[in-house]
Amino acid sequence: MSDEKATTTEAEPPRERNEETAGGATLSLSRRRLLGTVGAAGAGGLALGGSGGALAHSLSQDRTPVTPLASVGAGRHSFHGTRQPGIVEPGQAHGHLAAFDLAPGAGRREASALLRRWSAAAARLMAGEPVEGVADTGIADDAGPSSLTVTFGFGASFFDRTGLADRRPAALEPLPEFSADELDSRRSNGDLWVQICADDGLVAFNALRVLQRETGRVARPRWQMTGFNRTPGATDRPRTARNLMGQVDGTNNPRPEDDDFDRHVFVPRGGDRRSPEWMEHGSYAVVRRIRMLLDEWDEQSLEQQERVIGRRKSDGAPLSGGDEHTPLDLEKTDARGRLLVPFNAHARVSAPETSGGATMLRRPFSYHDGFLPDGAPDAGLLFVAWQADPQKGFVPVQRKLDRGDALSRFIRHEASALFAVPGGAPEGGYVGQPLLEG
Amino acid sequence: MSDEKATTTEAEPPRERNEETAGGATLSLSRRRLLGTVGAAGAGGLALGGSGGALAHSLSQDRTPVTPLASVGAGRHSFHGTRQPGIVEPGQAHGHLAAFDLAPGAGRREASALLRRWSAAAARLMAGEPVEGVADTGIADDAGPSSLTVTFGFGASFFDRTGLADRRPAALEPLPEFSADELDSRRSNGDLWVQICADDGLVAFNALRVLQRETGRVARPRWQMTGFNRTPGATDRPRTARNLMGQVDGTNNPRPEDDDFDRHVFVPRGGDRRSPEWMEHGSYAVVRRIRMLLDEWDEQSLEQQERVIGRRKSDGAPLSGGDEHTPLDLEKTDARGRLLVPFNAHARVSAPETSGGATMLRRPFSYHDGFLPDGAPDAGLLFVAWQADPQKGFVPVQRKLDRGDALSRFIRHEASALFAVPGGAPEGGYVGQPLLEG
Repeated sequence: MSDEKATTTEAEPPRERNEETAGGATLSLSRRRLLGTVGAAGAGGLALGGSGGALAHSLSQDRTPVTPLASVGAGRHSFHGTRQPGIVEPGQAHGHLAAFDLAPGAGRREASALLRRWSAAAARLMAGEPVEGVADTGIADDAGPSSLTVTFGFGASFFDRTGLADRRPAALEPLPEFSADELDSRRSNGDLWVQICADDGLVAFNALRVLQRETGRVARPRWQMTGFNRTPGATDRPRTARNLMGQVDGTNNPRPEDDDFDRHVFVPRGGDRRSPEWMEHGSYAVVRRIRMLLDEWDEQSLEQQERVIGRRKSDGAPLSGGDEHTPLDLEKTDARGRLLVPFNAHARVSAPETSGGATMLRRPFSYHDGFLPDGAPDAGLLFVAWQADPQKGFVPVQRKLDRGDALSRFIRHEASALFAVPGGAPEGGYVGQPLLEG
Repeated sequence: MSDEKATTTEAEPPRERNEETAGGATLSLSRRRLLGTVGAAGAGGLALGGSGGALAHSLSQDRTPVTPLASVGAGRHSFHGTRQPGIVEPGQAHGHLAAFDLAPGAGRREASALLRRWSAAAARLMAGEPVEGVADTGIADDAGPSSLTVTFGFGASFFDRTGLADRRPAALEPLPEFSADELDSRRSNGDLWVQICADDGLVAFNALRVLQRETGRVARPRWQMTGFNRTPGATDRPRTARNLMGQVDGTNNPRPEDDDFDRHVFVPRGGDRRSPEWMEHGSYAVVRRIRMLLDEWDEQSLEQQERVIGRRKSDGAPLSGGDEHTPLDLEKTDARGRLLVPFNAHARVSAPETSGGATMLRRPFSYHDGFLPDGAPDAGLLFVAWQADPQKGFVPVQRKLDRGDALSRFIRHEASALFAVPGGAPEGGYVGQPLLEG
């Protein structure tokens, strides 16, 4: 999950980059918010860049601790740009995935107006500015943007509902069925998709609430899932984050500085054979709700768990040796000639070397929705994977996993969706405009 | 929610108190963890106290940002002590509330053994140390303690199941029925209660998972709820946190430095008329799942919302004037003689001045479990209130609210529970030992 974290410095909390970023983030907040901040914390609260020790925070008279905005709350991403946010940024601590279906009677015109409203609201929310009017809830009023990102996508059914079937990307063809799927159709697919990520739970909820209210009568919620990742600052280890099986998960993710990162993750300028021009700079999101059979998993010994994954649990290093980022040695054997990374180990089966180079950017959340009627935890991974074409990313990898992954015994794919996520909107424009007005 | 935050400095993230705390927290971590830290981050990552600018973090060679442990992860509370943790500490960003029922055949002996196991595991988890053996999941392995607290309580039914009915506190009598209750018995009450709070979602989940696994065949999950609060550092405003209605909520909470705080919240040494000696230094937790009818609420104008609450939405100041912490002026009227804080405003009806001094320490979480079949958000407040005797805290306040609170229209009490939370365990002891072995 946090391989990206290692490399995309844009999204680092400003406290770790000091004056330049902190100042920029603070100044970019709305005047209303800024004045509120000065009034509440005194100028000292904003003076982070000026003095090396400013983070030894000041206490106001009533002994309320004042954490400078140049902290978690100040993290800020831009909504407008060539690409949508929420793809390459480090994964935030809170995530909501929500699918909506257009209401009966709503078509292209209503969808266009909705995407315009959604885009306008997302831009304000991501800037930490209140959304005026019907949608102003106040929930996030005191918080900074907290690295909020909002991302919009279209499911295959959207194109039928809006009379745009002829503009549906070939790359949006339905995912094949996999033998291990136990999919719940009510929690799968959907006309419209919204991904909301933020480092604060109230900021994330507020964004979801605002966007849901902006749908008016045009769209209705189909499904919604909530997940989490590690809170910024909860660890100081330079290591990919763990999932709810305790594994270091995401080591092999492509990195934005890799030469072929863009090619793997984003539709090129002008589109390509499988994606029309309106998808340029866009991507495809595969969303899978993958429940982990944690009771069964936890009954395995450490050695059994490590042979299922092909990596050490403690630090994610391959069983063939080295540290977390050492490439797998797929041939290496022990003294008895046994493969160190077993033939059906998850790391081997999912490796690009064994998938014809298939690559996707995984950006998941853990989820935990209590327990099921049988007492088993309803918990696992909200798998979100990004690629320029699912046929060159998720599909070939999952086909291989479906056939021979030792991990399959311990997981269940319970929901699935695929969305076309267009490029970003320029100032004054909205996401999907080239499709809906093109 | 964060009135306590203002005053309990013990739990401030060490980055805000610098060398002393940061060093202490780091040194208190296990050797295994500490060595891992040094190896990963280099000595620079631990040198927070030494140089004023140390928080401008160092980057390791692979450009992985190294956030010093003296950050969110380093927050650490002690499990052992006169009182249990999780009552007076500032509310953490993540919370799990879970009730368990003893399995058929399990009695006092099994309960005693379970509380001993639970206490031992909680102490290690709160110290950021791995729990060895059957319960070691690895999920939290790279994280600091992240201000984890674990709190245990007993429901009224526990005493019957364990043959201890004669030692049940009088103060644990069932809560009265309120006219606005729409309680779901499956999500109410329970023999045993666990409250888990942490600033990191994986740390909180891990603790829940470990404690649930430690139950073995002695107890089974009855209900479980998950909530959240603002992430540390998401705001820099010295203001009580907001709830999902956007209100500043918790302004009037008692503060630990108040003269009568202990008397209101904790059972005195030796017990009292309504609490036996084994409850000394303990407290009673009232837990209510209060759904907010957010669609209806959000249709109200700002003025209507403010008159329901009796406070300004923007900053929580009473409608009678002043700032958030100005006492309500219950008599003040406008030019037309209309009460500024309406007669049925929530702030008026719940004020100690109008409840015969009834006081409780509210320490809630917001919750959000997607949406209900009718499309309404399944969201609201996991209300947790602490008091030395519910008859002098929650009950009289709720009786008054039940009769005349303007907020009642916008909320539903969907689940309810009351737990006796004994005093803390000394080193080598366990929570509930004076009851179970007394």
